Amino acid sequence: MTNTVFFLFGATGDLARRKLFPAIYSLYRERKLGDRFAVIGLARRPRTNEQFRSDVLESIKEFARYNVTKDEQWESFADHFEYMSLDINNVDGFRELNTVADRLDKKFEVGGNRLFYLALAPELFGSVSHNLKEGGLLETSGWSRLVIEKPFGYDLPSAEKLNAEIRQVFEEKDVYRIDHYLGKEMVQNINVLRFANAIFEPLWNNRYISNIQITLSETVGVEERGGYYDHSGALRDMGQNHMLQMLAMMAMEPPSRMSPEDIRDEKVKVFRSLRGFQTSEEVRANTVRGQYATGNMKGKQVAGYRQEDKVNPESMTETYFSARVFVDNFRWAGVPFYIRTGKRLPVKTTEVVVEFKNVPNNVYLSKKHKLEPNLLVFRVNPMEGIYFKMNAKQPGSEGTIVPVAMDFCQSCQVGLNTPEAYERLLYDAARGDSTYFTRWDEVALAWQYVDKIAAAWRESSDNLCLYPAGTWGPEEAHQLLDEDGFRWWPVNGQDEGEVAWEFVQR
Amino acid sequence: MTNTVFFLFGATGDLARRKLFPAIYSLYRERKLGDRFAVIGLARRPRTNEQFRSDVLESIKEFARYNVTKDEQWESFADHFEYMSLDINNVDGFRELNTVADRLDKKFEVGGNRLFYLALAPELFGSVSHNLKEGGLLETSGWSRLVIEKPFGYDLPSAEKLNAEIRQVFEEKDVYRIDHYLGKEMVQNINVLRFANAIFEPLWNNRYISNIQITLSETVGVEERGGYYDHSGALRDMGQNHMLQMLAMMAMEPPSRMSPEDIRDEKVKVFRSLRGFQTSEEVRANTVRGQYATGNMKGKQVAGYRQEDKVNPESMTETYFSARVFVDNFRWAGVPFYIRTGKRLPVKTTEVVVEFKNVPNNVYLSKKHKLEPNLLVFRVNPMEGIYFKMNAKQPGSEGTIVPVAMDFCQSCQVGLNTPEAYERLLYDAARGDSTYFTRWDEVALAWQYVDKIAAAWRESSDNLCLYPAGTWGPEEAHQLLDEDGFRWWPVNGQDEGEVAWEFVQR
Repeated sequence: MTNTVFFLFGATGDLARRKLFPAIYSLYRERKLGDRFAVIGLARRPRTNEQFRSDVLESIKEFARYNVTKDEQWESFADHFEYMSLDINNVDGFRELNTVADRLDKKFEVGGNRLFYLALAPELFGSVSHNLKEGGLLETSGWSRLVIEKPFGYDLPSAEKLNAEIRQVFEEKDVYRIDHYLGKEMVQNINVLRFANAIFEPLWNNRYISNIQITLSETVGVEERGGYYDHSGALRDMGQNHMLQMLAMMAMEPPSRMSPEDIRDEKVKVFRSLRGFQTSEEVRANTVRGQYATGNMKGKQVAGYRQEDKVNPESMTETYFSARVFVDNFRWAGVPFYIRTGKRLPVKTTEVVVEFKNVPNNVYLSKKHKLEPNLLVFRVNPMEGIYFKMNAKQPGSEGTIVPVAMDFCQSCQVGLNTPEAYERLLYDAARGDSTYFTRWDEVALAWQYVDKIAAAWRESSDNLCLYPAGTWGPEEAHQLLDEDGFRWWPVNGQDEGEVAWEFVQR
Repeated sequence: MTNTVFFLFGATGDLARRKLFPAIYSLYRERKLGDRFAVIGLARRPRTNEQFRSDVLESIKEFARYNVTKDEQWESFADHFEYMSLDINNVDGFRELNTVADRLDKKFEVGGNRLFYLALAPELFGSVSHNLKEGGLLETSGWSRLVIEKPFGYDLPSAEKLNAEIRQVFEEKDVYRIDHYLGKEMVQNINVLRFANAIFEPLWNNRYISNIQITLSETVGVEERGGYYDHSGALRDMGQNHMLQMLAMMAMEPPSRMSPEDIRDEKVKVFRSLRGFQTSEEVRANTVRGQYATGNMKGKQVAGYRQEDKVNPESMTETYFSARVFVDNFRWAGVPFYIRTGKRLPVKTTEVVVEFKNVPNNVYLSKKHKLEPNLLVFRVNPMEGIYFKMNAKQPGSEGTIVPVAMDFCQSCQVGLNTPEAYERLLYDAARGDSTYFTRWDEVALAWQYVDKIAAAWRESSDNLCLYPAGTWGPEEAHQLLDEDGFRWWPVNGQDEGEVAWEFVQR
């Protein structure tokens, strides 16, 4: 079913090395790939097949979940890999590529299926698509699919332009836009939790949920990505895609069927229900943008953003943002979704916290005790798991009530070797399951939402809040919740005594 | 607040040795008892104060949660203990006891509070109460409370008689009937869970719960209690009290206040709503009684019940019973409560399992997957904790859905030293908190319910089902649930692969 010739554009790049080669190897080892496949590495620089296979081997040794053990097995795997130097502006090169592909297709009995993975700058998507068509690469008896990476544009107009170029060649159903957060185990588990358990759905609305908090925190700074990042910023780099996608997974209505298009239809409905900002004042009242200044991370002084390599010393780019988002429909009216993301924060983690409404004040046990609200927490990254925080008797006490956690720590399971997001997504693309890829209408609506924020921020410079590296962002982000009577819940490892998990050694 | 003279009737007995002395010591060590207390040990056999204190020391060394460490501390604790040989039919002895009590009351500045703990056969409750009054022991400036042990009667008439005798001397508010299951951490946690968390109450009814299962299994046989047990049986020994009490805790409506009488009012309402059996056929259709026969426990052959010491070789006494119980009110209409208890079952455990209604068949994920219903499980004994079983992605799989458990294992907490039920209950009685003691109207209604079952069983002998020791009771008990499309869920340690916990060494 996954018989495919993979065309890897950008085969000498970082993504290929860190994620794609290891992913293909894992799929192979788990026998999900079978033997009827080929991988053609494509980039400008010259490279022999042997050199390429050696690159692949190194990458797998460094990053794959499986160890390369048997030489014989390795040889037969590597045999599926070829490399071709390609000038992507030259149609003749594509014609040559077509010949190579035909040969490999025959050799491995693939049957004409082609998956074009563009690990390239988005500016190149258009011309590559064009040349794929011109070079005759789409004329096979099997399917042709395009897999592309973020960023998908810089704003709605640029995304529309990009999409138009691609759509001249590929149909929407054949375009697989990767948002690798959708490939993460616990994000995919949101649907399972919600729709395979009877007790969550009746609680999943504004009668029982007071707010939802989505945190995606990084400890790193911009590293060597200063050039790209300074033109993008946290809102475009994380907000438009990963964070709104996770929000949509939490907020969507039950789909009419569990098929890819039906699920994506429901996510689109969430995006349509997002309460758009009408004025710049509204944006400022509901969002916070920040930028890290010099600070301390684990006792070491680190540079501020403006001192980073390839960053404009007077940059107004945000490395942090948080927002109060409303989904104006029957289910969620009045329930704020708080999202925040940032670089140089104290802990690297992605978590989704559902805070339930508390028991009424001054009733029963809350008369004598300060009761914490119930929380259901999805730990997405790097720890994977779910926990539920509830009030119980303090073990061994007389009548003292304390929050305790029931937890399911997936990462704590000994010997568990969870697939990487890219494995799932490559596998899904090869199988033709587009559930966890973003459809054009989702992308467009997300840009539309985000563009209004960016536009308001551009109007003035006085709302960029500096925060010291190693802190939880600007104070304003805490006020944002405080205004509503809420607070950011601690994430994994943030506070002592909180529900902290540690990886089990494999 | 707990200034009390404790009168321990049956001070040379097993309960005193195993539970009461250790409980008093723990309360003392945790400074809940203070210094203004005295304990008078009472039994027929002669014993000096020194002998008695030495008995107490031995009992504490063997059974208490705290080690006796400092000699000095021990001496000042033991100083509160005195012993007096008493013929409970002789009023003069009681007068003498009164003198002793007055002396100790003065010595320790107790202020007249007296707690009479009758660790005696129930036949003696009446005459002891009578003589307490006659002997002038109730004429103090403080309160007088009676604490009594099960069994409280053998059926409703005998319980009524017993109660009438007691009530000639004590008011209902001063009678503390112990059901030590109500002293257990996790049974008390049922109220906290239900009323200190916002998300359980909306699910706690027949819209979301399909059935509730209460298991109280023992591995022991009758041991040396054959004489008593053969006249009692599982229904009276466990069903009338512990099991119906746990059922009431699960089923009760939220009380008007969290005060003892209001909570007990709600439990009484549950007992009133129990669907009584109208005919013997109804009893037979909804209950199973069993008796263990010879069998294997952990590879060792063990005797059948009729071969046990002091048991009638043709005994018809049940050592096992299960029942389908209905609470006919708005909340629980149509939700069966299954209860079962037995001796010589494979595992010793007490658990309450709430099985939620499943997601609709053939919808979404249940089309392709066999989904298990959600379970909320209270582990009462010997492991303490709570877990919630839900469906999630099988870690690392592509779309396979499996039940996983979020758990809160109290017993797994390192260094946790949970009070014994008897500690709580003694402490509550001394404080005057009667929440977790059974009120007369509860007892009476429980007997009324149970008597109908016993009467129907008496009518014929053909419904006593033998089960081999070491098995989960008669096949008929499984059919009972099977008829409704349910099954007994495995309890802790029963099945491999189920949620099993192990004690952490302290």
